[in-house]
Amino acid sequence: MTAIRHALTIKREDDFAQWYQEVISAADMAEESGVRGCMVIKPWGFGIWERMQQMMDRRIKAAGVQNAYFPLLIPLGNFVREAEHVEGFAKEMAVVTHHRLIADGKGGLIPDPEARLEEPLIVRPTSETIIGDAMSRWIQSWRDLPLLLNQWANVVRWEMRTRMFLRTSEFLWQEGHTAHETREDALAETLRALEMYRAFAEVDAAIPVIVGEKPANERFPGAEATYSIEAMMQDGKALQAGTSHYLGTSFAEAANIRFQDREGTQQFCHTTSWGVSTRMVGAMIMVHGDDDGLRVPPTLAPFQVVILPMLREDEGDAALITYCDELRAKLAMKSAFGEQLRVWLDAKPGKAAAKRWDWVRKGAPLIVEVGPRDMAEGKAAVLRRHQLWNEAAKPNFAFMARDDFAAVAPALLEEIQQALFDQATQRREANIVRDIDSLDALKGYFAEDQRYPGWAEVRWSRPEGAALDKVVEQLKALKLTFRNVPLNAPSADGTCLFTGEPAVERIYVARAY
Amino acid sequence: MTAIRHALTIKREDDFAQWYQEVISAADMAEESGVRGCMVIKPWGFGIWERMQQMMDRRIKAAGVQNAYFPLLIPLGNFVREAEHVEGFAKEMAVVTHHRLIADGKGGLIPDPEARLEEPLIVRPTSETIIGDAMSRWIQSWRDLPLLLNQWANVVRWEMRTRMFLRTSEFLWQEGHTAHETREDALAETLRALEMYRAFAEVDAAIPVIVGEKPANERFPGAEATYSIEAMMQDGKALQAGTSHYLGTSFAEAANIRFQDREGTQQFCHTTSWGVSTRMVGAMIMVHGDDDGLRVPPTLAPFQVVILPMLREDEGDAALITYCDELRAKLAMKSAFGEQLRVWLDAKPGKAAAKRWDWVRKGAPLIVEVGPRDMAEGKAAVLRRHQLWNEAAKPNFAFMARDDFAAVAPALLEEIQQALFDQATQRREANIVRDIDSLDALKGYFAEDQRYPGWAEVRWSRPEGAALDKVVEQLKALKLTFRNVPLNAPSADGTCLFTGEPAVERIYVARAY
Repeated sequence: MTAIRHALTIKREDDFAQWYQEVISAADMAEESGVRGCMVIKPWGFGIWERMQQMMDRRIKAAGVQNAYFPLLIPLGNFVREAEHVEGFAKEMAVVTHHRLIADGKGGLIPDPEARLEEPLIVRPTSETIIGDAMSRWIQSWRDLPLLLNQWANVVRWEMRTRMFLRTSEFLWQEGHTAHETREDALAETLRALEMYRAFAEVDAAIPVIVGEKPANERFPGAEATYSIEAMMQDGKALQAGTSHYLGTSFAEAANIRFQDREGTQQFCHTTSWGVSTRMVGAMIMVHGDDDGLRVPPTLAPFQVVILPMLREDEGDAALITYCDELRAKLAMKSAFGEQLRVWLDAKPGKAAAKRWDWVRKGAPLIVEVGPRDMAEGKAAVLRRHQLWNEAAKPNFAFMARDDFAAVAPALLEEIQQALFDQATQRREANIVRDIDSLDALKGYFAEDQRYPGWAEVRWSRPEGAALDKVVEQLKALKLTFRNVPLNAPSADGTCLFTGEPAVERIYVARAY
Repeated sequence: MTAIRHALTIKREDDFAQWYQEVISAADMAEESGVRGCMVIKPWGFGIWERMQQMMDRRIKAAGVQNAYFPLLIPLGNFVREAEHVEGFAKEMAVVTHHRLIADGKGGLIPDPEARLEEPLIVRPTSETIIGDAMSRWIQSWRDLPLLLNQWANVVRWEMRTRMFLRTSEFLWQEGHTAHETREDALAETLRALEMYRAFAEVDAAIPVIVGEKPANERFPGAEATYSIEAMMQDGKALQAGTSHYLGTSFAEAANIRFQDREGTQQFCHTTSWGVSTRMVGAMIMVHGDDDGLRVPPTLAPFQVVILPMLREDEGDAALITYCDELRAKLAMKSAFGEQLRVWLDAKPGKAAAKRWDWVRKGAPLIVEVGPRDMAEGKAAVLRRHQLWNEAAKPNFAFMARDDFAAVAPALLEEIQQALFDQATQRREANIVRDIDSLDALKGYFAEDQRYPGWAEVRWSRPEGAALDKVVEQLKALKLTFRNVPLNAPSADGTCLFTGEPAVERIYVARAY
């Protein structure tokens, strides 16, 4: 059998980190900007993020949450509160100290010493404090509650080691912040956001996730409970793809968010916050990509169908383009996933084969090639990106009547979506061990010479305080972390792997991004 | 006749600037943030901007322009090029000089002296230079052209005197940047963007605009031609609501954007840029607002229909809410302007009358009140925000069968949209003088003791250089500016008002924001 000649130079199993970089570059998603730790998100990568935004935003609005916009620049004073409780406080943030540039007289530019700010401004690392200030102004009575806010924004956290989409100094995200009358309301909102993230990951991005609560050591500072969705990448590592926090009244106390309750008494609000970021694009790459590049789930693809006329730069091209454009128009009238199909006719000059491989690397779900002979026969050659190769190690083209293809394209896209989800779910389940019953066995499992060991779901007794710290240290020595305690799981019997005490639940252990 | 008791305390004719501030606050659109020159855009204001974004983005994508994202922080060095040609260069920009905050040991925080950046970073005032850098990397051959990019982003320009939505230190906008093989292509793109802005203003925002070319003194620095759309506010002033620039090859030369042409020769690209910002929200307020608050065109309204059950906090409320929710559901199945209706059932506790006036001030196009008696009769009381008062100076309710209202709501919304556009167009036309034929007459017209003199369209000879400077100085003394030379206008006969030479075209003169 002939070997497949893959469209990338690096295979996942050979070097997953390098493969990831190659996908991003070969799929034309993003590149380094020349500004430390900041990337340029190119049209294909940004188009995927825009789709994520749209689908998430629809879910956010459907829940009655309102979008608003808060300033990029936050007075330094807003961070003093936070610093008061932290010895040796030091935070990596971009600090604005001047408001004017002037010529230095030597052909260069300098911050104008006359334009030094009295109080430096911080480029928001999150909008928590400034939204807290707004909430304290906007909320007077129980009638103003719940207050459900969300912001789509760029934030900056100075990062020393960066990796495109996964950790960059500037990134894009949404941050939800809500205030409630009661603990019950706030907890319900925390879990609603969590379920929204699950549905977003699984339905909109075809990424299966484990939904659960983080152990105390992984809680957001000040939170009473932190929940997450965790996805398994193809190297077996976990990626936290979204978090939702119940903050009790601690955040309201710090920001003075009070309301008059139904009895006329002043109370602190119960608040929540939840966020998802451009990290999700990284997760999509590492869950769905293969040795030929990206495979974008049809829901997220900026173009779901790409049509490539095999142009010959002669007088036959015009008719071929018309034939392809008729197909484009037919497809554009159809819907999948409740939305009009997104179709692109790529009639740019260039060889069809080169363009085909570009779109393979970009991961367009359906790639349709049409040559003069196909046109003569009323046909089109259809490549389904998620099953690229046939048994003869050749591109797995299906030759279909053009109009038949137009009719079945929505169903094909829905099949592809499901197939990607199923594949990822099967891979994940095949890479979770659930029968490890001692710390030594855990050690052995993760120490084995398999590169991508996956996750372990183990019994534990939910230790707290120093006992928990000790366990976390043990894991750290193995380069492992707790991911989460899955919700709605049956209670565990047996013995805690770490403390030897009776187990109360099961928790996921993994290497992580 | 009884006098109308308006929902605002300040009338437009009494103090337009104060009225503008009151609308923003009474309609709950935005507020000062406590950060110099930066505003918080509240949900209602941001919802309107989101609608603008969506509608514009659809037009941008339909033109084959691709969105991308470039870094917020730009190296200081990128501005040196620009500064080289400007004596006494000084630009108001937010300058990042440090990347860490630390405790100062006295309970405060300071930028860590050890974390001083080698090269300061500038918070982008525009992404021109960084997009230029990317273009120079991405373009090699004529096959890569045209390259059509757009970015939605926040930008910061330090402003001394700010006004919400009109001039703020941070604002939101889109910036289109395109590169082309030829002058003809680039000019066509410049005019396509301009026409897109016209359609956006007139169709999507019901704001009539004059489409034209700016005179040389108003050109964007480095541009060969600058075009604008100009809207008349209700105080007679002009507001430039969008600009589109043809930059020739000057921008490409500065950023080294070259391509190999069809003959194999290296050439500089012809480029364009075009932008629209949150200023457009300010324009909408000043064009459509009235003495009762905002009137949002149905296309832009986050909620087009607001339903207010007259709750009594008793056991009858549940049935009333159900009745209203049935109406909401019926309406949500309908479409206007090719989109599903946006309907809000406001069942929050509170008096219906108070809520009615809140929604009047916010300018929801259709406000529907339902009391127990209406319910018993199968009716609803409908208020059309754009015609709020009847002849008896009372709110102009139309009592309609609930289901009849559901059936006609889309048509009502389309009528309202048209009515707002027509009203604004008539007002503008009534406030343009076209028969001024001397500088003295112009002086007299704008010196008259009428507060809102409107615009003058006058003949001119299109002077250049020093001759133009002289004319601009004369206008400046009258606090007047040139707006634009309308496109597709008949050529002018007669004499130039300013130079006494034969006129070649007509140009708009006005006070401006």
